[in-house]
Amino acid sequence: MHPFTQRHAESVSAWGEARLIAAIRRWLGTASPRAPFGIGDDCAVLPASPGQQLITVDPVIFGRHFDASVPPRAVGAKLLKRNLSDLAAMGGRPTAAVLALTLDRRVSRRWLEEFYRGLADSARRYRVPIVGGDIAQADGVIAASLTLLGSAAGPRVLTRTGARIGDWIYVTGSLGGSLTTGRHFRFSPRLAEGAWLARQPEVRAMMDLSDGLAKDLHALTPPGAVPALEAEQLPKHRGVSVKAALTDGEDYELLFALKQSADRSAFARAWHRRFPLVRVTNIGRFARTGSVSAQALSLADYHGYEHLR
Amino acid sequence: MHPFTQRHAESVSAWGEARLIAAIRRWLGTASPRAPFGIGDDCAVLPASPGQQLITVDPVIFGRHFDASVPPRAVGAKLLKRNLSDLAAMGGRPTAAVLALTLDRRVSRRWLEEFYRGLADSARRYRVPIVGGDIAQADGVIAASLTLLGSAAGPRVLTRTGARIGDWIYVTGSLGGSLTTGRHFRFSPRLAEGAWLARQPEVRAMMDLSDGLAKDLHALTPPGAVPALEAEQLPKHRGVSVKAALTDGEDYELLFALKQSADRSAFARAWHRRFPLVRVTNIGRFARTGSVSAQALSLADYHGYEHLR
Repeated sequence: MHPFTQRHAESVSAWGEARLIAAIRRWLGTASPRAPFGIGDDCAVLPASPGQQLITVDPVIFGRHFDASVPPRAVGAKLLKRNLSDLAAMGGRPTAAVLALTLDRRVSRRWLEEFYRGLADSARRYRVPIVGGDIAQADGVIAASLTLLGSAAGPRVLTRTGARIGDWIYVTGSLGGSLTTGRHFRFSPRLAEGAWLARQPEVRAMMDLSDGLAKDLHALTPPGAVPALEAEQLPKHRGVSVKAALTDGEDYELLFALKQSADRSAFARAWHRRFPLVRVTNIGRFARTGSVSAQALSLADYHGYEHLR
Repeated sequence: MHPFTQRHAESVSAWGEARLIAAIRRWLGTASPRAPFGIGDDCAVLPASPGQQLITVDPVIFGRHFDASVPPRAVGAKLLKRNLSDLAAMGGRPTAAVLALTLDRRVSRRWLEEFYRGLADSARRYRVPIVGGDIAQADGVIAASLTLLGSAAGPRVLTRTGARIGDWIYVTGSLGGSLTTGRHFRFSPRLAEGAWLARQPEVRAMMDLSDGLAKDLHALTPPGAVPALEAEQLPKHRGVSVKAALTDGEDYELLFALKQSADRSAFARAWHRRFPLVRVTNIGRFARTGSVSAQALSLADYHGYEHLR
């Protein structure tokens, strides 16, 4: 469905602000609580948070993250899920979200309704109340930016920092081909997996894979170390090359470091008891700089997604 | 300063993502805490919040909220301040903010630096840590959307709901002419005033003025009531007409309802002890529908700012 309409009567601007906001509340339905806990006041009111909180923000932009070939429901769902993946990467669970929308006035109401219904379906599925937002106008643009608030699911938040030389590198699921197959719209954020991993004391650092393993892994690599990966160990989706698995991006899988002294068999057994349908793969380890074997993949030969290029 | 540059070497895209993020951290300086409490991980970590929280989101957009004639420092400051005004309107104080930026690749780094330095100056002044954000690219666009998190400054959050027939209508400061004089960039959000008002039990409902009194006042008006205003009572900025005071918008003053039985003289004295430099004016009251005197202003003759038109 093309987001723009040539017919003024079918556009968002024909309705104006008040009717549009009323419609958005209808489209969100039970995904949006009543004011002051939802849309309709200067701020939304949120309950107290007894533990550490988490916050993240990510957009979807027309021409960049989606085009007219993508069903608007998938766009709305992806906007929430890509933020949920950031929360999963720290062992968090969601508490609330707000949405800032920048729209050309020719955007069709039908497109916008489907977008909101996709967002609402995902919000209900992952229990994320959409508590507020803003709509502004700008020519030629459809940009939706979602801010997601969460809290630690357990006693600990896992960050990207903490891996040490010798630690084992793991990844959930399979990599590559996400953009060409549409998997970047269909994925499920690894919330349960991230929460479980944050509860395992042998897991020292974690992040989600969004720009491709070759680029993202740098952020997990401790000082004085290089990742020593074996190409055959990479869990690849069917028909995907090693290069694609390393660089395609938008995998939304979890990448984490397991303590060198951990019992890897016991860890794998515990994982498979808890997540029998999800792969977890040891893809290498953090070696001291200069001590990497000649068989190891050289990540310098691969580049992940570069923003603003 | 024009935000776009014709020279690739001076643009944000010449730097690429990693250098740009490093520069943003430098520009924000002490306004942005270190990871995991600031920029640099999948989410930012925030401390626990023992009381009710508040959340709001508002943007500034090139061509809509500012143009090339506006100093980018003023744009960055306004982005934070317009969100702070929403927080003030509920009696809140800020705890953290995240920024989602959508940029054309030709945006000049000098413009962006000034924008961030303006944001950082205001963030330090109002003690709002900028804990995270996102930068995405879209052609022809500069849109910055800030999500602000806060908490109740006192025991109570004030909403737009709660005024009753007979209650007195008050406004802080003076109205009108904000857009033509540049006051919409220079204003100070009424945080201290909003926090104080939320602590007065006779204040029953509050909001901030962003689209003009004539439009905004509807949201505060209880069912079965109409606002009965006297034109001479309106606190206007010098040289501003009644129409402009009612409809210009972007006043960022507080509008609130004082209980019918309140002692208005005692209230005015207490206000002036606390805020000797800030006007507060009783501009009318909420009358029962049908019982408004012929001298009262008819708000139906005036229209505030309509979004998406």
